[in-house]
Parts: sequence; C-alpha cells; structure tokens
Amino acid sequence: MASMLLSRQLTCCLQQNSRLLVFGHRYISQAAAKIDVDFDYDGPLMKTEVPGPRSRELMKKLNGIQNAEAVHFFCNYEESRGNYLVDVDGNRMLDLYSQISSIPIGYSHPSLIKLLQQPQNLSTFINRPALGILPPENFTEKLKESLLSVAPKGLSQVITMSCGSCSNENAFKTIFMWYRNKERGHNNVTKEELESCMINQPPGCPDYAMLSFMGGFHGRTLGCLATTHSKAIHKLDIPSLDWPIAPFPRLKYPLEDFVKENQQEEARCLEEVEDLIVKYRKKKKIVAGIIVEPIQSEGGDNHASDDFFRKLRDIARKHGCAFLVDEVQTGGGCTGKFWAHEHWGLDDPADVVTFSKKMMTGGFFHKEEFRPNAARYPHLISRVRGRGTFCSFDTPNDATRNKLITIARNKGVVLGGCGDRSIRFRPTLIFKDHHAHLFLNIFSDILANFK
Amino acid sequence: MASMLLSRQLTCCLQQNSRLLVFGHRYISQAAAKIDVDFDYDGPLMKTEVPGPRSRELMKKLNGIQNAEAVHFFCNYEESRGNYLVDVDGNRMLDLYSQISSIPIGYSHPSLIKLLQQPQNLSTFINRPALGILPPENFTEKLKESLLSVAPKGLSQVITMSCGSCSNENAFKTIFMWYRNKERGHNNVTKEELESCMINQPPGCPDYAMLSFMGGFHGRTLGCLATTHSKAIHKLDIPSLDWPIAPFPRLKYPLEDFVKENQQEEARCLEEVEDLIVKYRKKKKIVAGIIVEPIQSEGGDNHASDDFFRKLRDIARKHGCAFLVDEVQTGGGCTGKFWAHEHWGLDDPADVVTFSKKMMTGGFFHKEEFRPNAARYPHLISRVRGRGTFCSFDTPNDATRNKLITIARNKGVVLGGCGDRSIRFRPTLIFKDHHAHLFLNIFSDILANFK
Repeated sequence: MASMLLSRQLTCCLQQNSRLLVFGHRYISQAAAKIDVDFDYDGPLMKTEVPGPRSRELMKKLNGIQNAEAVHFFCNYEESRGNYLVDVDGNRMLDLYSQISSIPIGYSHPSLIKLLQQPQNLSTFINRPALGILPPENFTEKLKESLLSVAPKGLSQVITMSCGSCSNENAFKTIFMWYRNKERGHNNVTKEELESCMINQPPGCPDYAMLSFMGGFHGRTLGCLATTHSKAIHKLDIPSLDWPIAPFPRLKYPLEDFVKENQQEEARCLEEVEDLIVKYRKKKKIVAGIIVEPIQSEGGDNHASDDFFRKLRDIARKHGCAFLVDEVQTGGGCTGKFWAHEHWGLDDPADVVTFSKKMMTGGFFHKEEFRPNAARYPHLISRVRGRGTFCSFDTPNDATRNKLITIARNKGVVLGGCGDRSIRFRPTLIFKDHHAHLFLNIFSDILANFK
Repeated sequence: MASMLLSRQLTCCLQQNSRLLVFGHRYISQAAAKIDVDFDYDGPLMKTEVPGPRSRELMKKLNGIQNAEAVHFFCNYEESRGNYLVDVDGNRMLDLYSQISSIPIGYSHPSLIKLLQQPQNLSTFINRPALGILPPENFTEKLKESLLSVAPKGLSQVITMSCGSCSNENAFKTIFMWYRNKERGHNNVTKEELESCMINQPPGCPDYAMLSFMGGFHGRTLGCLATTHSKAIHKLDIPSLDWPIAPFPRLKYPLEDFVKENQQEEARCLEEVEDLIVKYRKKKKIVAGIIVEPIQSEGGDNHASDDFFRKLRDIARKHGCAFLVDEVQTGGGCTGKFWAHEHWGLDDPADVVTFSKKMMTGGFFHKEEFRPNAARYPHLISRVRGRGTFCSFDTPNDATRNKLITIARNKGVVLGGCGDRSIRFRPTLIFKDHHAHLFLNIFSDILANFK
C-alpha cells in the first residue's frame, strides 16, 4: 500500500540522512515512474518558479478585495488530476498536501464527477435542504450506505455538518447536554435554568469545559478555538474561555532508543490531565469532556503511543468525562486504518468521533447515550414516565396542566390529570400506532403555540 | 412585485380579520392562479395528511441513527419546483418557508442546474479548494461578478464562508482583531500576548465582547450562541460568555396608533445599549462590536424603525464599537431591497455585514479598515514603516535581527541593520516590482523556518 511504502521509505530515508528529502535530487523509490491510476499524470512538470507570473498577478488582484497574504499560488482545478495539482502557470506538481488533507481519491476523480452529475445529488446542492426539519427521501439510506458503513465500533449515531469546526462545536454541545442531563438525573429543567440561559448565565449556561492539549488544533470558531493551541496567530486578539489545557507528550526519536524517557513523559502528561480535572472542579468548573487528535497535525505531527490514548480514555471514564476523538485530519484511511484511533485497540469505544475533510462532509459519530434527549418543551414537560400505554408526564404547575388539558379537549383529544401537576394517558387496549401519531401531531401543535 | 403584494395584502388581511390566514379558506388574492415562472407548478395538490405514511415510516428509520424529533416531513427535492415543495407522499405544497429562507429563486431552478453542471463549478465541489491558500484561477473575478456586485455601499472587502454561523464567528474575530489593533496603536505584539493567548488568557486573548439584543439569533456555535437569545432550547446546558445583552424594542401595532409609545420604547432600548457599554467597560470588559438583525427573525419577526437603527449606528461610532449587521436571513432581496439595512439610509455604512442562506454561500462584507493586518510573524516583525523604498521594520532584539540578516545573506539577499533591533531597506533606484517579489519570497521562507 502506498501509505506503508511512503511511511517506511520516508522514515528510513530521513533517519539515515538526517536531512530534508529533496524530490528530484535522487531516486528515493525505484517504482517512482509507475502509474497506477488511469487518470493520473505521469510526473511533475515545471514551467516557471512557483508562484509564477500569472499567480502573482492574480494575488495582487485578490488582495484588492481580501487579504491574500496567505495564498501560496492559484490553481487550475479542472486540469488537476489524481495526485497532481496544476497551477495557473501550467506547473504540474505531485501534491502531498492535498488541500490540507481534504482530497480523498485525487483531483477530478471521474467517479465523483459522475456522482455529482446525478440529478439527485445536483438537487442537494441547489435545493439546500434544511436537513434537521426537511430531509430528502434517501437521507437515512445514504447515511447508512456511506458514513455509517465506516462508523467507528460502538458508535451507532451520526450527525452531518458542513465543516470540521462546526463538527467539533456541535460535538461539544452534545457532550455538554449529555453531561448536564447526567447531573440533573431526571428531565426536570427549572425555571431558573430556562431564564438564566437566555442571558448567558449559570445555571442555564453551566460552567462546563472541554479539556484539550497544548499543540492541539480543533478549529477556529470561538468554542473550537478555546481548545486549539497550535499557533499564536490563530488565537491572538480573540477572547477565549478559561478551559484546562494539558501538555501533550513530546516523544524522543528514534522511539527504541528512548523507551523509558517516553514512558515517563506520557505518564507525566496523563497525571497532569487528572490534576487539571480535579483542580478545575475545585474552582467549580466541570470538565465535561476531553478532546484529542490521534496525531496532533497542525501542531507539528506530534504522536503518542497507543498506550497513552488507552490510559487517557480510562481517565475520561474514571472522571465521568466524555472522550472525544477529533479525526478531522486523520480520518478516512490515511493512517493505514480507516480511523486513526482504531490503532489503539480501545476496550471501551470513544464516545464521540468528529470528521470532515477527506470524508467530503463534516459531522460526528456518537454513542447512543449521547443523543440529545433534551425535550423540545422542557419548560412545559418533565418527568416523562410510563409502562406500556400507562404513561404520564409533569407540567410546571396545576394552572398550566389544566390549561393544556382544556386546549387539547378543544382540539379533539381527551386527557386526564393526576397528582398536582401531572397529565396521564389511559387509552384503551385497542390504541394503535396511528392513534399515537395523531395525538402527537395535535399535542405538538398545542405545545408550539402555548403561551 | 410579489414581495410588496404579499406584505400589503397580508398586513391588510391580518389586521382586518385579526385571525390567522387559512389558505383555501377563501381567495385572498384574485391573481392566485397566475403562473409567472415557466417551471413552476400551478397550485398545491394534497394527497395525504402531512406528515403522510411514507414520511412517518422514514422518520422512524432516521430516528434509529439520529434524533429525528424535529423533522416536519421528508421531501422529494427532485420533484420540487419553483415555489412548490413536494413531499415523499406526493403532496405538493406552496412553500412560504423555503428551507428557513434559503432558496433564492425556487426549487430546482433550471439555470442553477445548468450552472452546477459546468465542469468548472463541478470541480469546486469535488476538488475542495482550500481557498485561503490555493484559490482557483477565477476566484477574484467570480467574487467581483457575484458577491461584490451587490456589496452594501462602502464595503469593498468580502470573505466567503460555508454557513451563517461561521460567517458571524469570523466577523466577530475580524472585529476583535480590528479593535485590538486600534488599542495597540502600532503593530508591536508583546511576548506576553503571544504566550498568554496560547493558554486562552489575557492580554493575548483580551476580554472583549459583542453586544447583542434579547430576541436576536446569530447562529449556534459557541461564539454566535453567546449573542443568540431567541429560544431557551438553543442555549440550555451550553456554557457561554458574559457578554452584554440589550433589550430590543417591542413595538405596538398598528404603528400609527402608537407613535409616541414606540418612540419612547426605542429610546429606552438605545439608552440601555449605551449604559451596557459603559457598565461593561467599568468591569474591564470591552464591547468591541454591536451585532443586530435588521428584522429579528428567529426571535419572532420583531421590527424597529429606521431611526432606531440609525441611532444605534451612531452609538456604535461614538463608543468606538464596530457595527455588524447580520443579514443572514434578511439579505438577498426579500425585504424589497437587496439588503434590508439599505432601508435605513445610513450616512456612515455598517462596518461588517454577514450573509448566507439565499446568497447560496456564507460570508461577510467589511470596510477596508477591518482587513486583518495582523502580521503573519508578529513575534518577529513589528513597527513596519517607510516612504518609497526607504523602508524598515523592527525585530524583537538585536540577536534575532542579526540572525535574520545572516540567514538572508546566505540565501542571496543583502540587508542592513539600524538602531538596536531594526532592519532597513536601502535598494537602488532601479529596484523593480519583480525584485520586491523575489525578496518577499525568499524572506517569507526564512520567516517560516525561523527558530
């Protein structure tokens, strides 16, 4: 496999020479000329220095409407194929960076072009479905065929997102809701929580944190950025959150010469993780989750041992924190397994795994217990309970309860009360699924309009 | 125009009847049967109740892999055309919600299908260009032809994003960087700032805030969510930031009967905005910007007068805060002007305007002074100054300065020092653009590898 060949040859070559690999300097691999994908080019072809004159001209133009300082060069994507990126000056380069790890099977892959031209797929881009409320007919089936067919072990649920940052942001939120529900123990959201959350204050907005690692990169929106610590330029001048940051192991290479030192280094970092969880808890800031990359990419390709990650997973479980593995850059096959964290051999799977880039969509997998079960009307409905059809729930007080019963009756549904604030269901034994749906539709409307 | 007709007829009808408009109940408009777009259907066609049996079956399936409680029904997007959304049970509905305001010119518009099928556009979706570093050849030209051709007056710069939340998140960051640069007065970032930002602490992560309005909705990632105050369910259980929240006017209707009350209500809200800016400044939290929707949409379609917004803009200027208008839901023509805030007749344009949804891409426009000019190597380069080619900049100390000069010399560039930490340029009078590019390329490499 190309990835094994690359990693072995690179490791070998770089270690022996202790200098940078210069392509064209000499043959690294004897099979360098082999073309194994039909639509691939047969090698680099350089016509100008890069950026060439056309790229420089375009940079100047772009700089008129946005800061273009970070642009490397301009590309001709229609001419780019397979492993080769073609620039606007006609230079064809073997691309080992692939849009920061975002091209799964090469540029302009014929299968992808064919796929996107299908009316159903074109329709998705043009008709911008609001997936949460109006999904297309094949949504479940497509998720099962694609994302869920490669879901990490133990994670049966999947949510899609547009980008890696949104994937992590929403994974954090899923974790915070899960943690709060655990703390609450039941579904009884208080009036104080509902009111305080509207003005950004606890208890409605609890003082929860994600623990992250120095050198990690998890995106650049404000929540993600509070867990990103790779480069100052990403963070400078942006307000942040006081969330705990643990050291990530700095391993010495070659690994076989530093076995003991590296074990000590990893132990030191793990100890710091536990210390931080405890220290932050003492100042009333709860670590709801730990986020980590299998390989810190943006931060310098920093690795840790499988043992380190297994122990980190154990620490998360021990302290009741969710364990979130950010596979945005490592996922999709490039580490030799579909998900990099599969190398670790975890007994207990990760709780949440985020992805984007090579997956060609953002999103995250999670365990079933992380489904947001926060009710849609927590200010009206709580303590939902029942056996069979013998069900009930609580409302905030008897006035609300009685009003709900009256409104329902006028919409054609008879409900009964019990206790001082409960509504109970006591249907007959010939109550079927469609009756339940009928009720749920009517009651859902009532709740939506309730004032 | 359809929009004027709709708003007049609706206002008229709803006010006179004081009850909900029920379609099919009676003819509201005599031109209801007119078809003015070729590919549009000629009216609703209902076959089942909604959600129908197929939708309910699909909801159950989707619910196996993600919480599907919020789903209204499943759609057949390929059959949806123009103003009509078709569901999986064959019901055809006149769509006045359009994927939460995200469909600009109707479902499956032939021009959009044609456009997306063009190789250049297909390529964009398949080849996932990292636009910040490797844009396609036509990037500037396309931005000028499309987004910049409808840019709000005074805003010459545009940045694209994937969604509305990312647009607001990045607009906030642009504002924070602009504000910090103003405060700094020059480009001299301190070592303390660079180190503290890596651990989420001031002064590197300054205690800045965005002021928002109760009832506003600006997205659901953590930064945006701190400015969103429309529904508790969006915010409950998610940690937030202590940022100021002002009341948004609650106008009484019909407006002509409550002129004085409404003026007083708006004056009260504006006073509160100023009080909050001052109050937060006293507790060392600086309001760097104010964010507002021209019409609070998610929060209940709350309007305020043009005068209110003009005065709000004045308050922002008076206190040195950026004025950010969130046009994610209102932009794109639906208020009768391309941008809703064009109704206000501002003397001084908004500083930043965000968009998404009907624009079919996210992003934001901004004034030129909001270009992030944070240098790429603020720890190495500061106090950049010069006239003509008589330029110079500072480095952190003489050791760094001398090292940079030595490295440059070995790469073929002669530079001189001056003062105790400056590098000066004194080229000949035959120094051309291409020499400058040559230098910039070499020096950029040196900075990137500098340790």
